[in-house]
Parts: sequence; C-alpha cells; structure tokens
Amino acid sequence: MRNIVLIGLPGSGKSSVGRRLAEILGYPFFDTDEIIESRYETSISDLFRTRGEGWFREVESSLVAQLTRKPSGVLATGGGVVVRDANLARLRQWGWLVALVAPPELLAQRLGPAEHLPLVSKDNPAASLARLWTERAPRYLSADLVVDVSALDVDEIVRKILSFLADREQSAIPVRTPAASYTVYVGIGTLGLIGHNAATEGLSGRGAIVTTPALDRRYGDVLRDALRAAGIRPATFVLPAGEAAKSWATVGRLYGLLLQEGLDPSSALFALGGEELGDVAGFVAATYMRGIPLVHIPATLLAQLDSCVGGKVAINHPKAKNLIGAWHHPRFVLVDVSLATTAGTRSLRAGLAEAVKYAVIVDAGLLGFLENQLDALLALDPGTLSDLVLRCLSLKAQIVGQDEHESGPRLLLNYGHTFAHALEAATAYRRFSHGEAVAIGMTLAARLGVSLGLTDRDLVRRQTALLHRIGLPTHFSGVAAQRVLEALLHDKKRKGGRLRFVIPCAPGTGQVVDDVPAELVAKVLNSPPSP
Amino acid sequence: MRNIVLIGLPGSGKSSVGRRLAEILGYPFFDTDEIIESRYETSISDLFRTRGEGWFREVESSLVAQLTRKPSGVLATGGGVVVRDANLARLRQWGWLVALVAPPELLAQRLGPAEHLPLVSKDNPAASLARLWTERAPRYLSADLVVDVSALDVDEIVRKILSFLADREQSAIPVRTPAASYTVYVGIGTLGLIGHNAATEGLSGRGAIVTTPALDRRYGDVLRDALRAAGIRPATFVLPAGEAAKSWATVGRLYGLLLQEGLDPSSALFALGGEELGDVAGFVAATYMRGIPLVHIPATLLAQLDSCVGGKVAINHPKAKNLIGAWHHPRFVLVDVSLATTAGTRSLRAGLAEAVKYAVIVDAGLLGFLENQLDALLALDPGTLSDLVLRCLSLKAQIVGQDEHESGPRLLLNYGHTFAHALEAATAYRRFSHGEAVAIGMTLAARLGVSLGLTDRDLVRRQTALLHRIGLPTHFSGVAAQRVLEALLHDKKRKGGRLRFVIPCAPGTGQVVDDVPAELVAKVLNSPPSP
Repeated sequence: MRNIVLIGLPGSGKSSVGRRLAEILGYPFFDTDEIIESRYETSISDLFRTRGEGWFREVESSLVAQLTRKPSGVLATGGGVVVRDANLARLRQWGWLVALVAPPELLAQRLGPAEHLPLVSKDNPAASLARLWTERAPRYLSADLVVDVSALDVDEIVRKILSFLADREQSAIPVRTPAASYTVYVGIGTLGLIGHNAATEGLSGRGAIVTTPALDRRYGDVLRDALRAAGIRPATFVLPAGEAAKSWATVGRLYGLLLQEGLDPSSALFALGGEELGDVAGFVAATYMRGIPLVHIPATLLAQLDSCVGGKVAINHPKAKNLIGAWHHPRFVLVDVSLATTAGTRSLRAGLAEAVKYAVIVDAGLLGFLENQLDALLALDPGTLSDLVLRCLSLKAQIVGQDEHESGPRLLLNYGHTFAHALEAATAYRRFSHGEAVAIGMTLAARLGVSLGLTDRDLVRRQTALLHRIGLPTHFSGVAAQRVLEALLHDKKRKGGRLRFVIPCAPGTGQVVDDVPAELVAKVLNSPPSP
Repeated sequence: MRNIVLIGLPGSGKSSVGRRLAEILGYPFFDTDEIIESRYETSISDLFRTRGEGWFREVESSLVAQLTRKPSGVLATGGGVVVRDANLARLRQWGWLVALVAPPELLAQRLGPAEHLPLVSKDNPAASLARLWTERAPRYLSADLVVDVSALDVDEIVRKILSFLADREQSAIPVRTPAASYTVYVGIGTLGLIGHNAATEGLSGRGAIVTTPALDRRYGDVLRDALRAAGIRPATFVLPAGEAAKSWATVGRLYGLLLQEGLDPSSALFALGGEELGDVAGFVAATYMRGIPLVHIPATLLAQLDSCVGGKVAINHPKAKNLIGAWHHPRFVLVDVSLATTAGTRSLRAGLAEAVKYAVIVDAGLLGFLENQLDALLALDPGTLSDLVLRCLSLKAQIVGQDEHESGPRLLLNYGHTFAHALEAATAYRRFSHGEAVAIGMTLAARLGVSLGLTDRDLVRRQTALLHRIGLPTHFSGVAAQRVLEALLHDKKRKGGRLRFVIPCAPGTGQVVDDVPAELVAKVLNSPPSP
C-alpha cells in the first residue's frame, strides 16, 4: 500500500488524523513541524522569528526528502510544505496526498488564540488563513483525496481516508456460489483496512481473532486497532501453528472460550493464519452456535492463492486427516500479500507448488507467467506476488462458482494431491513438506498421464523445470513404492472405490481419469524418473 | 399400513413373493395352502381326492376368516380362494389385493410335472390353467394391484409391490428451502418402505444405521432387511438414549467407526430415534467427510411432528446445550407413526406440548383439532396421530421454507421455549421433562402476553385446559423464580443482548417481542398462576 501524506491549512486536524490513521494501519507516524520543533528545541513561530521563513523552508524541504526515503508511514506536513514544487513532487511519489480542507473562518475558530502560529495574525487569524488559502488552494485541491472536514470529527475523517484507501489499494475478486456470495480483497500492506472492510460487510459488536503466537506478536495489534476503530470488540485466541491445531481438543477448548467471551451468532471470527489455521478456525466458525460469520486473513502464500476461497473447513481425526469438516464460506477474505512474504521459504515453496498446479491444469497463460516471473516471486517482490495471487484466486473463484462441492470441474484442483496425500500418509506426514509432496505428486501424475498416452512430454519437462527452480523435488526416496501404493489403495476405498487421478494434457488443460489400473500406477511409482 | 394379500393362479409365485415381502416389511407371513397341508399332514391334491373340493373350500374359507382377524400380515392364498365372494370381500377388507398374473402356458412351463396340483391335468397343464384363468380372470383383475410377472423375478415383483405401497400408504410433504429440497414420507407401519424410498432418492452402497439399543432391538432387523433389499449395505451403531448421546465423546467415537466401516461421502446415515438422536447423528452426518446424506426416521412424536424437519443438528458442550451445531437438511424423512406409539407417556406428552405450540401460535384450526381429538391422541390412535403429524409437519415445512435459518417467521416456533430453556437450565435439566418445561414455558409466555396487553385471556384458558388434559403442568415449583430469571438473563447475553419472547395473541397468531422489561418478566415469574 502507498503511504499517506496529509496536507492542509493549520487547524485542519492533520496531526490528530495522521496519528489515528497510523495507529489503525500499523504505520509509523511522522509530523514535520513536530520533528523540527523537537530537533531545534523550540517552536516553529520562534524559528520563523529568529531564522526567517527562507531558512525554515530549507529545513522543512530537507526533512521531506529524508522522510520520503522511509519505506512506510503516515506523514502530517506543515501547512506551507506544499508551496515548494519539489516537496509536492516528492510527497506525491511517496504516497497518497490527502488534503483536509475547511473554510478559513472555521479553522480560525478551532485554533483559538493563535500566538504559536507563524504567518497567522493574532488579531485576525481568519483573515490570515483566508490569505493563505487563496495562495495555496490550487495545491491543496490537487491532492488525490480532498476531505471537507468542516462537519467531521477525527474518527469520521479517518474513516473517509480508509474508505479511499480500500477503494484504491484493494482489488476485489467476487466469489459467487449457490450458497454464498462474497468478496476477496487483495492488496499489499492492507491489513489495517480490515476494520473498514468488516464494517462495509455489516459486521459489528463482539468478535474473535484466532491466530498463532507468532502472527499475534507480529500483526495482532494492527488487527485489533483496525477492528476496534470499526466498532468491533475482538477477543484474541492463540492456537498452536500447523496441523497440531487441527485437533478435537483445540476445537473443544475454543468453543468454551468463545462462549466465555460472550460471542453470539452475529459475532465474527477472524482467522489470521495459514491454511491449517483457516481450516480449524473455519470449522469452529461453521459449528459454534450453528455457524457464525467467518473472515479469512490468510498469512501464507498457499492460503492466499488457494485455500482462503472455496468454503472447505476441517479438523483431523486421529485416524484420518480432514475427516471432520464442513462447508462454510467466509463473509469476506482479506489478502494482504505482505503477510505471505514473512512466512518463510517452506511456506513460499508450498504456495508456488500450488500455483504450478493451477498453471499446468487450468491456465496456460499462468504457466508462462510463472516461467517469466519466478525470480521476482522467489525474491518476494510484493507486486509480482500480488499478480500471482490475483490470477490464482480468479481461477479458483471461477471454478468454485461452477462447482461448489467438488463434483465437477473443481475436482481438477486435486491435481497432484492424490499422490501427495498417499506420500504424506505413507511417511506419517514427517518426511515431506506439503509443497514437496505436491511437487512429487504432480510429477507422478504427469508421468502417469504420459504412460496413459494423455500427457504431452514437453509439458512434463516444463513442469519439472519450474519445480526445480522453485527448489522442490520431483521424485521421492526413502519410502518404498509399495507403501505409497498401499496408501493410494486405502484412500481409494475411502473415496467410494475408485482409483481416480487428475491428469494434465496440454498446458492449462487436464482431465479426471477414473479407474486407472493399479498395475500402471505401480509401474510409475517404481520406475526411475526420466532425466 | 394395510396388509397384503397375494392372489393368482398356481405357479405365479405368490408364496416366494409373499415370504420375501413379509421379511422386508417385518410382517408375519401366512400361506393358506401351506397351513392346510400342515394341519392335515397331507398334500392339497390328496385332500381334494379324498375329501373333495367342496370340503376343501369350506376349510379354506374358515381359514381365511381366521387369518383376516390377525392385525397384520402378508397372505399368500391358494389359487381358488377367490372363487367365493365371501372370501374375496374379507380379504379386500383386511388388506391390499395384489394379483400376480402371467399367460397360462408360461405358468405351465414353470410348474413342470404338475402332479401335486389339483384341478390341473398332468397331461395338459396349460389347458387346465387356461380354463382356470378364463373362470377366475375377472376376479384376479379386480385386485388393487395387478402385476404381470411374465418377465420378472421375485425381487422385481417385490419392488413393484413396495412401490405400490409407497404410493398408497405414504403422504408426501415437500420441504423447499434455498439450500435444500426434500420429502417427508408419513405413514403408519411403513418402516419397511425405507429401502424403496432410499432407492427412489438415489441412495445405494454402504450405509449406517445410528440408533439406540431399545430401538435397535425392536426395529433394527426390519430396517436392515428393507435397506438390504434395496441394495444398501448398512452397518449399525448404537448410541445411548437421550441427551447422554449428544456428547463430544460419542461423536468422536462415531467418526472412527464410520471410517472403519468404510463409509464414503456417498454413504447415507439413517438416524432412527428421538429428537436427541436425530441431533447427534445429524451432526455427524453434517461433518463426516464434510457431510454425507442423512435420513431421519424419527421415533418419538416430538421428533415426528417437529424436529425431523428444518435441518437443525447439534451436540452439547459441557457449558451449553446445543452449542456445537450445524444446518444439515436430510435427504428425506420417513415418519412411521406407529414408532411413536411405543415411545412412552413422557415422550407422548412432550410431542403433544409441541403440537399445542403450533396450534396456539400459528394454526387456530389445529387448536380445535387438538381440543376435539385429544382423547384419541392420548389413546394412541394411529390414524389421529398421523393426522396430527401431517398437520404439524405441513406447518413446519411452510415456515422453514419461508425462513430457513430462523431469522423471521421461524422464530415463532420458539414459543414457550425461552422460558422452558431457562427452567431447564435453572434446574440442571433434572426436575422437568422437556414437555413439562415447554408447557410451563408456554403458560408463562401467555401470561406475560396478558400483562403486555397482547394476549387474549380466553386463549390462555384454552391452552391451560389442553395442557392439563395432556397431563402437563402449567406452573413450576421447587425452584426459585429468581434463579429462572437469572438463567433468562444469561441466555439473553448469549443471544446478543435482547430479552426476546414469542407472545401469542389470538388463537393461531403470535408475535416476537424484543426487549421485554426484566421487571415485567420477574413479576410474571413471581405471581401465582390464576385459578
């Protein structure tokens, strides 16, 4: 998200609005006048009197140059900062220019005895302000957003700015299924907009944040501040990270805590975490008092580009993963891509493996995008990650819209996952990360496709090359092929007796193949990968 | 359900079809020829030869008179039983006449060397059978159902008869909500039609019966036979009766058992039991592998006339009843009213209390019906119970169709239940049965309505009179009014801060009243009931 620069005449509320906005967005707050006053240990008026306006403007300009090198912030400027073109150009490049404007007479009343202000006469502040307005109005009015603050308090002004940011900084992907209709808001650094989005979506009152300890430390305060600013009073519940949270025991404890904190059927549950946390928190939202509103704030690439959409929620049974589950669509999803950049390499690779899945099986264009942009993605470039997330989520939204409960086209999204689950089960979920298992699974499925005469060999090569660049393996070792086959056959029994695989054909197309002969599968599992 | 009488020429398959049909329906099977042969320890041919046809027809007629005094059965008759008008009249009154017919030549082939058959010549059985057909055809063809068995095997013939019975013996109530569309089949003694209904609804393969030990002993075999006849292979899981089953522990165990028995997402769960069993089995069906088809076979009057429709499923949390739940509509519902007649007085009263609720709050006509028919209902007359169930379910289906998730008109069905839940909670669910709590709760709500100036005093009197006739109390003792009030206020907090009651107005109309002053509620709780 771009930064925010507040401009306007004295008395328009730049400092109070900026401070509040920074708190909600979790951004550092800077106030040029305040910084200068504290640097010279005296008031701006004194500096004007003793050193003159020319000196002050130089100091101010150099401070602007310095502050606009900071990566992020909300900046409240002195009223005259806009008079220099160079300042205005720098500020405009660094962030959104937001002008707070009001009639000079009103500002004069608000300021009261104006002795500390330079360029404003004590005797007739309204006249001084009117003169400044005449000089500067064209510059103020050239801002990206102009807010008439005459009749607004600080919170109201902040809400207007958040609404502007929500519009400009978020891409909205609509998801429409027979059972639900919701929006995925995608942006970079947009976590602080959660409150605005929640209010827009009609949420209020009590709320619950469910997250992991690490994410709570990193993002909990921003989330809470943003929700509180929107009138939502959140309680926070911390679960262990990863699959460990997806247990009966965790869920039982969580129900009790939600009840104790007074969550009623209208309270929303905000799930801030990766795919596993989304699963377990989503299951609780689906079943607490027969279902309460759920908001996904996915914090890993995999959760952002795939699992946050589609309504699948589940926990594990000691005897089978995801055995206990439901369909519960979120009220909305907020994807802040910058959250995924802090989730670690393993998690990045798992997300990219899932992106390769979308590319190979449903979108040839995405395959080219991945081949061209992989370096930027691996370097965690937010813009490129955001493009990737938008592309994958659009595909997912379209597929889920056609086939809500995975009986038709949505089955394609299991590409690589039949083998992956068998590999994971055969190694007790210890040897392979999910990304590794999916990468190996897609390779096995593609090779099975070749032996069925369905898959283009060149596609297998392109897929393998991409997976290797991501840092993922394309064949397994350390577990007997026979054990993987047994896990496949066990899974088959569970799913109604069919050995079903998703097989890629040409780039971006695939098909579901039922009743693949077990001997053929065994042959692929046992044969060494082609060089 | 009426009984079944099979008529037709020798060789048409009456005995084998009858035996199989009786097994599926759980009815006793009678075969007139077989009974006569065993009584006289010789064959029908011998009796014809030694005693003559006249004597035989007398014996046969007296046997028909005797068998048609049995309460239930499937009866295979000798081919000539229809020649006497008196027999035919008796049989027609006792059950459905089903004729199995086929061309005489085909029957002759099937019979083979026909030495044991009277009236059929050894040398030319086809000619004898053709002659018998000419004589008797008008009588056979006057049956309620005529099945041409020329090209059918026993199972196919049985399926045709079951289909006929399903049409004639069941009333179908459609339920249509945005999320689901299903049928409630209501009949008397129709449990054996479950397999036919399941097949009609597209169910097949593995299945699970979830029930209580007592119901399993009483109805388990019929249910299993009927399902197996329709190609469904059921495993049976027995849960404790009542609220005890609605626990986390039970549900966890059940998931594991379903997995072990190989239930996949297409397998149906048949919930045979009262409202609590429907709740817990329904919750498992809603969450096992993200939901499997659910069939309710309600076995108490309350479950039959109310809870089997609407999609509410839930289990209890140690801190709150029904805290953990979902919405999961059944694939279909089979109501066999005769099951409710064996469920005991307490259960009957709870069901009737719920019927009074429907009458007072949504259907003035039903109020009159209850006042007129209560003696028949208390005497467990199946026809009257069936009328009651049909009336209540039709109301429920209509209301659920308008308001699936209880945000509008469906709230009316909580009449009496706000007070009832508070009474139950204040007494740790030990002092009052649910029916008693609802009866007291409706009385309190009606008295609250009088003090709000909304409720007709005469309606309160009619309601009280009905409840007393049912054997239910209309005021509470043994618990302090203050504790009940506290439970109400606790419940209010849980439900979003409103003290909400459903208040009856005139017969068959009610309204939801929010924010009733606590002082007024306290006054009603503390004041003695009017005489």
